[in-house]
Amino acid sequence: MKRVGILTSGGDCQGLNSAIRGVAKGLYHEFGDNVEIHGIKDGYRGLITGESKLMKPSDFSGILTEGGTILGTSRQPFKLMRVIDEESNVDKVKSMKENYQKMKLDCLVVLGGNGTQKSANMLREEGLNVIHLPKTIDNDVWGTDVTFGFHSAVEIATNVIDCIHTTATSHGRIFIVEVMGHKVGWLTLFAGLAGGADIILLPEIPYDINKITQTLKAREKSGKKFSILAVAEGAISKEEAALTKKELKKARENFPYPSIVYRIQKELSAVVENEVRVCVPGHFQRGGDPCAFDRVLTTKLGAAAAKMIKEKNFGNMVGIVGGKTAPVPLEEVAGKLKYVDLGCDEIKAARQIGISFGD
Amino acid sequence: MKRVGILTSGGDCQGLNSAIRGVAKGLYHEFGDNVEIHGIKDGYRGLITGESKLMKPSDFSGILTEGGTILGTSRQPFKLMRVIDEESNVDKVKSMKENYQKMKLDCLVVLGGNGTQKSANMLREEGLNVIHLPKTIDNDVWGTDVTFGFHSAVEIATNVIDCIHTTATSHGRIFIVEVMGHKVGWLTLFAGLAGGADIILLPEIPYDINKITQTLKAREKSGKKFSILAVAEGAISKEEAALTKKELKKARENFPYPSIVYRIQKELSAVVENEVRVCVPGHFQRGGDPCAFDRVLTTKLGAAAAKMIKEKNFGNMVGIVGGKTAPVPLEEVAGKLKYVDLGCDEIKAARQIGISFGD
Amino acid sequence: MKRVGILTSGGDCQGLNSAIRGVAKGLYHEFGDNVEIHGIKDGYRGLITGESKLMKPSDFSGILTEGGTILGTSRQPFKLMRVIDEESNVDKVKSMKENYQKMKLDCLVVLGGNGTQKSANMLREEGLNVIHLPKTIDNDVWGTDVTFGFHSAVEIATNVIDCIHTTATSHGRIFIVEVMGHKVGWLTLFAGLAGGADIILLPEIPYDINKITQTLKAREKSGKKFSILAVAEGAISKEEAALTKKELKKARENFPYPSIVYRIQKELSAVVENEVRVCVPGHFQRGGDPCAFDRVLTTKLGAAAAKMIKEKNFGNMVGIVGGKTAPVPLEEVAGKLKYVDLGCDEIKAARQIGISFGD
Amino acid sequence: MKRVGILTSGGDCQGLNSAIRGVAKGLYHEFGDNVEIHGIKDGYRGLITGESKLMKPSDFSGILTEGGTILGTSRQPFKLMRVIDEESNVDKVKSMKENYQKMKLDCLVVLGGNGTQKSANMLREEGLNVIHLPKTIDNDVWGTDVTFGFHSAVEIATNVIDCIHTTATSHGRIFIVEVMGHKVGWLTLFAGLAGGADIILLPEIPYDINKITQTLKAREKSGKKFSILAVAEGAISKEEAALTKKELKKARENFPYPSIVYRIQKELSAVVENEVRVCVPGHFQRGGDPCAFDRVLTTKLGAAAAKMIKEKNFGNMVGIVGGKTAPVPLEEVAGKLKYVDLGCDEIKAARQIGISFGD
Repeated sequence: MKRVGILTSGGDCQGLNSAIRGVAKGLYHEFGDNVEIHGIKDGYRGLITGESKLMKPSDFSGILTEGGTILGTSRQPFKLMRVIDEESNVDKVKSMKENYQKMKLDCLVVLGGNGTQKSANMLREEGLNVIHLPKTIDNDVWGTDVTFGFHSAVEIATNVIDCIHTTATSHGRIFIVEVMGHKVGWLTLFAGLAGGADIILLPEIPYDINKITQTLKAREKSGKKFSILAVAEGAISKEEAALTKKELKKARENFPYPSIVYRIQKELSAVVENEVRVCVPGHFQRGGDPCAFDRVLTTKLGAAAAKMIKEKNFGNMVGIVGGKTAPVPLEEVAGKLKYVDLGCDEIKAARQIGISFGD
Repeated sequence: MKRVGILTSGGDCQGLNSAIRGVAKGLYHEFGDNVEIHGIKDGYRGLITGESKLMKPSDFSGILTEGGTILGTSRQPFKLMRVIDEESNVDKVKSMKENYQKMKLDCLVVLGGNGTQKSANMLREEGLNVIHLPKTIDNDVWGTDVTFGFHSAVEIATNVIDCIHTTATSHGRIFIVEVMGHKVGWLTLFAGLAGGADIILLPEIPYDINKITQTLKAREKSGKKFSILAVAEGAISKEEAALTKKELKKARENFPYPSIVYRIQKELSAVVENEVRVCVPGHFQRGGDPCAFDRVLTTKLGAAAAKMIKEKNFGNMVGIVGGKTAPVPLEEVAGKLKYVDLGCDEIKAARQIGISFGD
Repeated sequence: MKRVGILTSGGDCQGLNSAIRGVAKGLYHEFGDNVEIHGIKDGYRGLITGESKLMKPSDFSGILTEGGTILGTSRQPFKLMRVIDEESNVDKVKSMKENYQKMKLDCLVVLGGNGTQKSANMLREEGLNVIHLPKTIDNDVWGTDVTFGFHSAVEIATNVIDCIHTTATSHGRIFIVEVMGHKVGWLTLFAGLAGGADIILLPEIPYDINKITQTLKAREKSGKKFSILAVAEGAISKEEAALTKKELKKARENFPYPSIVYRIQKELSAVVENEVRVCVPGHFQRGGDPCAFDRVLTTKLGAAAAKMIKEKNFGNMVGIVGGKTAPVPLEEVAGKLKYVDLGCDEIKAARQIGISFGD
Repeated sequence: MKRVGILTSGGDCQGLNSAIRGVAKGLYHEFGDNVEIHGIKDGYRGLITGESKLMKPSDFSGILTEGGTILGTSRQPFKLMRVIDEESNVDKVKSMKENYQKMKLDCLVVLGGNGTQKSANMLREEGLNVIHLPKTIDNDVWGTDVTFGFHSAVEIATNVIDCIHTTATSHGRIFIVEVMGHKVGWLTLFAGLAGGADIILLPEIPYDINKITQTLKAREKSGKKFSILAVAEGAISKEEAALTKKELKKARENFPYPSIVYRIQKELSAVVENEVRVCVPGHFQRGGDPCAFDRVLTTKLGAAAAKMIKEKNFGNMVGIVGGKTAPVPLEEVAGKLKYVDLGCDEIKAARQIGISFGD
């Protein structure tokens, strides 16, 4: 009897359930009745506390199209190895290892983004058999062409920009749409391109507010009364980018805005004639059904994970490399972030069709 | 030759183009080649400045599904009659009347909400032949069962809540979704009901933050770790509701939040254990294609307007009364706002299925 | 302890689960722990065979947005009273009555369309306490302004026509979209209007193929190379409409087409130059999530049903009358079909904007 | 002054306008005022007859999200080189060449699928400067990872299967959804995977009706009362696959079904107990707005095409190779079809999660 644990960790996104289903259906296909799948509750937290549930095949029925995760999720429980919980004095890593052994798992499948991957790699170093599936709307996992959740989130953010377009045009207004992404701008870049944004601000390209104003005024001069800015949560001004991390933190501590977009709104309002409005769709972008692309992707990743378990090929992320599913050693990728490559096709295409990055 | 002017005024919404098309197709059907349709630019502003354009039948092709307005729009130009523009010393009403006469119009069709209607009635009193079509996502126009734009906006706001649901459930979080509506809560009420919100805050029902906390804690106690609040832009606390208008204005002057939802977030965060997150979809709710309901509604209203022009039945809003299109005299309805009736089916149903209004 | 049975019967549609949830949440609110809800399996079939299940409050969680029905459904089990099953010699009505009594039900809530309503009325005549909720994408239930499922289906069928529009325009083709509705044309009428169809064929208005050809040729002459026909499943030619039911049945017996639209395709292809294509979305129109309109509607109907159970107000359909929920006596409405009223606003508006009904 | 002609050819799909916009915006960016873009009407037909129009920058505004093609399209005008039109005795290739010269074009950009590509290559051989952008919902263009239109069509077909799912489950029915694709099954494969189909029939894998029946019966036995088949238009039985092309043509000549799915319906109905229903969404799958994926893809392809024109890098398709835009010589790819690779990840994943291909 094979015993496989599965958990979802970190911020949820579209396609988690579809990926869980892929792993499960793949395992039942490989092992028939000779496999037990144990759903671990609320991410690594459940592995620490030992909360899990033996799943039945029917638990995975009908979840292909469901948003969220049937297993629940929680944030990363630690940022450093062997972190001892302050209150309970529990060694979290030790607890996870013990519970893995107590559950007699042959493998632990973890679905998550960068933080999850890092933790998974740590568990691998502790001797656990781990397989990681790269999940995040941010598309910032190193070593895979794409993560699941990303294209679903792009569709939603694009739809928001589409709707904003009609009202921006009718009123001749400037609209700032905040797109998710604190460190990495893939989502903003893709949604901005797909939604026809005029200006795109990414964490990777510090902006100059004067350049933005110039673009807006040039558009107005050419008769285009409205403009749309797609702005990543993590957008940063050139001035701020020159600060040290500590200085930046301090500078933002008294930041009187719940988001950078409100500051940009205020700054632009002071210099342009048009009204400047803000739209903050927030977590809306990571919810709802996965798009077809993500359902196919997660099914492929899940089935490949099942096969890797059969082949005892552990310690890997199941990535998409050159368009094909492939095992990617966790030790090679854990801890690396895939920032927007400033020379990538999307950046080049955006510049070529006249989109400004405020730089 | 009949000459009909048409303009769209106030905040844009879904269905404006579809309504314009309905009026135009209806007019061409009634009068054949014996009608000229003059599109007036950017709402009443174009009537003041005399900016208009003779439309061709092909201008109305393919616009049924388009968001926004092909005529452009602007805010209400005056709140009182005969307001004299401060800078130019122009009497706006006089200008509109003169341009109406200069254009030799037989009728002016105005598409807009409450403010638009009030202005339309004023023009009627000045002797102009006016017909009004009730447009607004707020559904707050008196004298009609429903306004166009409303159901399209409900679909969007509901979709936002749906998506938020999956992430709220997965993480066990509290989410506050800000729904449009400064004075009137129909949109929040419908989207809250349709999206399965647990708490709905409307401008018409001042909320008690303690009652909200109680509801959240009761839900948590019963094992429901997440909660969703659908909150109208114009939500107001009981304390604020007790203030005079002037006092309220002053109290909010130094309001350090771009929206009430951020204050509620802060207040709840202080007393509940779960994370509290905010989603502000904003103008997203009024953009994009009209839903099928609004396309049928606007086509009916437009066709009815054309018929009323044929019959020289002026001075009316084309409303839906008892489910049927009907002329509603502007003098009877102008200036009245349709607030949420606290005894309406939707409020009753919401309370019956356990939704709290924070009261 | 109150004991309430609930079943869904006939063709499924959007909003069934939302309505079930409304009834359940309403009952739990009215009666607290003093109510048992018994879910009866697969419609009346489950009442005949006595298959049911005591539901828990959690069974109704998360189903607001789900298509289909958690209770399962089946076709009407009989068309006449006291029909004796041929094989088993079972008196179906007697079985239902006995099971109702065996389950000690205080009330049976049935969700369904016309056939379901007729059966519900029969059970009422047998002395059972029955409440009916009007469900059908056909909108053909007498005594209510609207049925749930209708507006969701209109959205889907409209979306199909929208998509067909772009390909029709690009290629200059004629497209026939088959819309559901064998006897009644509301769905085709609304979707045709909302989708901007050029020709709408309804069961209520027999068509003349020559009139259709004339319209198509007139459009071509005026430079419009494409045309879209929204055709109800039950569309019928003038020749066929002149036949007796028996003659029609015989004539269609050897009908070499799976649907009327293929015959129209063949007939038109013979006389027009453009290519004529067919689109048969079929049951696609009754699946998927309910639209926001239907969610609000079903919640209102469900909550009203719960209240009527509290008040022992049985023997009614919960209808929407003049825009408000109201009890409608089953004996007054059972067996009546709400055909498209040829003088209704939608027909008038369609004709006024130049849509042909082929008559 | 650079002069660039642009045309869209073959069946339309999502993303054509977005691609046209990408090319145009890229060209205006590269050449500023020193470029003229000539829109050629209705595909190659317009090049034969010399119908074209000088486009303005504003012609490309607002078309990013529009389905269809603003240039119109037509089927391939010839299947062999130098085909002489039978009626007019016109040498079509000669006409195209002459019109290209008459228009003084520096380059001709053609958007289309396989047939279009073949014709483009022929024009290249005739000495014209040609660039091809790979468009088709079939994803069957050799030499590129993906074609635009494909992922948009996958989303639509998946949505259809999703909706069918709810009604299939509620009724315990078998549903056959016909997905576009006469020769190649990529669209059916992806939509089948994404929609959770139980059986997928592709042109590349001839089916055995008995195997399908076995699968359906095995599902029924295991308690799954419903099943969904995603069937490509070009699905073919093993018996038919054994025939010569000529024999097959003859066999299908008297085919009494408008589509293979109706035959499968009849065959299955004879052997299984459940009702078997058919859904034929047809051209619905190629219409409507492009999904975000296709908008980004087309923008990249368009911008790359503009750059290739700048660099006089002609005679290529702009493909996606290894995830990046790249010129692909037409002479190497023209005439080749990218069938579903039976060893690809998607086929493997499908088999691994228990999907049957009827083989």
